[in-house]
Amino acid sequence: MPEWRKDPLVDRWVIIATERGKRPSDFKIKPDEKKGGRCPMCVGHEKDTPPEVAAFRESGSAPDAPGWWVRVVPNKFPAVRIEAQPGIRRHGIYETMDGLGAHEVVVETTEHEKNLEFLPAHQVEEVIWAWQQRSLDLRRDARFKYIQIFKNFAQTAGASLEHPHSQIVALPMVPADVAAELDGMRRYAQNTGRCIICDLLGQELAEKQRVVREGEKFVALAPFASRFPFETWIVPREHQHDFAALRPDQVADLARVLRSTLRALHDCIGEPPYNLVLHTAPINDAAEAMHYHWHLEILPRLTVMAGFELGTGYFINPTPPELAAQVLREEETRAFTPIYAQPGREVAQYV
Amino acid sequence: MPEWRKDPLVDRWVIIATERGKRPSDFKIKPDEKKGGRCPMCVGHEKDTPPEVAAFRESGSAPDAPGWWVRVVPNKFPAVRIEAQPGIRRHGIYETMDGLGAHEVVVETTEHEKNLEFLPAHQVEEVIWAWQQRSLDLRRDARFKYIQIFKNFAQTAGASLEHPHSQIVALPMVPADVAAELDGMRRYAQNTGRCIICDLLGQELAEKQRVVREGEKFVALAPFASRFPFETWIVPREHQHDFAALRPDQVADLARVLRSTLRALHDCIGEPPYNLVLHTAPINDAAEAMHYHWHLEILPRLTVMAGFELGTGYFINPTPPELAAQVLREEETRAFTPIYAQPGREVAQYV
Repeated sequence: MPEWRKDPLVDRWVIIATERGKRPSDFKIKPDEKKGGRCPMCVGHEKDTPPEVAAFRESGSAPDAPGWWVRVVPNKFPAVRIEAQPGIRRHGIYETMDGLGAHEVVVETTEHEKNLEFLPAHQVEEVIWAWQQRSLDLRRDARFKYIQIFKNFAQTAGASLEHPHSQIVALPMVPADVAAELDGMRRYAQNTGRCIICDLLGQELAEKQRVVREGEKFVALAPFASRFPFETWIVPREHQHDFAALRPDQVADLARVLRSTLRALHDCIGEPPYNLVLHTAPINDAAEAMHYHWHLEILPRLTVMAGFELGTGYFINPTPPELAAQVLREEETRAFTPIYAQPGREVAQYV
Repeated sequence: MPEWRKDPLVDRWVIIATERGKRPSDFKIKPDEKKGGRCPMCVGHEKDTPPEVAAFRESGSAPDAPGWWVRVVPNKFPAVRIEAQPGIRRHGIYETMDGLGAHEVVVETTEHEKNLEFLPAHQVEEVIWAWQQRSLDLRRDARFKYIQIFKNFAQTAGASLEHPHSQIVALPMVPADVAAELDGMRRYAQNTGRCIICDLLGQELAEKQRVVREGEKFVALAPFASRFPFETWIVPREHQHDFAALRPDQVADLARVLRSTLRALHDCIGEPPYNLVLHTAPINDAAEAMHYHWHLEILPRLTVMAGFELGTGYFINPTPPELAAQVLREEETRAFTPIYAQPGREVAQYV
């Protein structure tokens, strides 16, 4: 018998196929064909992108020149523009606004062929630090209410360039999905005096059915009402509403847990397309932001969102999260020793 | 400058690329490879499916045998089951329920290769009648609160079988997306005493910027805050909350407008994958259902829902709806004379 499961935060029911749950071998993945051609993110092609807004690079190296190991540039084809003005205009019953926002690209490595899960853990840490620094910098613009950090891997998940990269979009409003989660968290806090994600972590760590990885500071788990096969969330053990409040000890552990989870996904399923979505508290004048408990969502794209999903907002998931967690747990955890703050390297930020 | 547009019904902002808007030729479509093999929906293979629950077939022809022109069967691999029991169970902080529901398949034609837009209009009418009849029949089960009718065309839009078909899922709850629309419609009605969709139609018909087709009873339009390139909604001109209240004169016009719009999409873009999603009022004990104004959404799948969409619930649409409407309007309208109620044909329903 299939099972309806309700997301504990928002109005979202998922149909979980509890019998005949789809295992990794049931998904056929066709890795993207390599495109070839000149890559604007590779070393030596720095002039192919708009001037960098931040970079981690060797001391003495010039902006927009080699010597970097993580580089952040404005998107050459931005969905939104920083030079726009806020302010809603009415057009009859409709509301519209200039396309205000910021849209940046984080080049995660100099290595064109090495996606996040194949980078050494210390390089994954550098990517996380870049996300954090841009998040702190962009919020200085009081017009922005939310910073959406995400990554699309492979064409099926929306990636148009091969070189490993993530994206940052600063928005002039709190997105509906985050607002709904925040509502759910606030309601629970008002009723119980506790954080629902903290409680959820407690239940998951007691049951161990859906736990994928247990780091010292972070837990990776397959959500009870997973929308996608092998969906995995990485959640800080302590209540922390703002991703940008990450400390160095947390970054090191997050990098290990993220890398190891993505690597297990890759090794189990074989280069699955996926999206990474960082959900964190709204910035600038969100009075209730402290109720939020930030988390990173890994969303493998092995199924198609079709008429049912687009019509209802609900999902059909053919892989029970308990099965997904078991499969991912069984993959050997690969641990790397983090190395940071090497001599002769510096953090450069230009704004 | 790109533009943020807010959906008039729900909390959904869309970034519309108003410059360099993507035209049909900017989308590369690779039609699905034909799979071959035995088709369980073709004439003569009626025993390959579960026994039919309804069919339009020639007088004297036997159930589950040739002689039908539209056939409705339970899904062989149902996402939900009619024999399940309602009732929410708690598991710590989580809620779960047996996979209650109904999941049916509407075989839209005997012709394996002819998708909806290539059928004669009278056959499209028959498909609409089948949707309506199943909707009326399924609501007799008081456990169901909503009937989601949808169609997935091509693999990119989630179709797993080639033979033209649509699907019907009866749900034990009102889906979040429909509930949110109903909320928006009710709020507007409370504030103004009017229906927002009726007002919206008035504004669209006055401006003519986003109108795609004007039928006698239905209007096809590109929504102001379209999520997808060439998204088109078909809306009844009169306020009607329940799709199943359709009258014969409406069915004839809806078939013409739907077919002509889908055909224009096909002719402009070249076999685009799409989802059809019918949004109608909740059934059984939804006190405010009369505020709803039902509509049919055509959602071409020319872009990928990626990290931004999955993280925020908002969308980036590279084709302004004004451009989409203009392109679709310019395609010649192909009209067919409807033919129904031919002698020697009957409607059979077995429950």
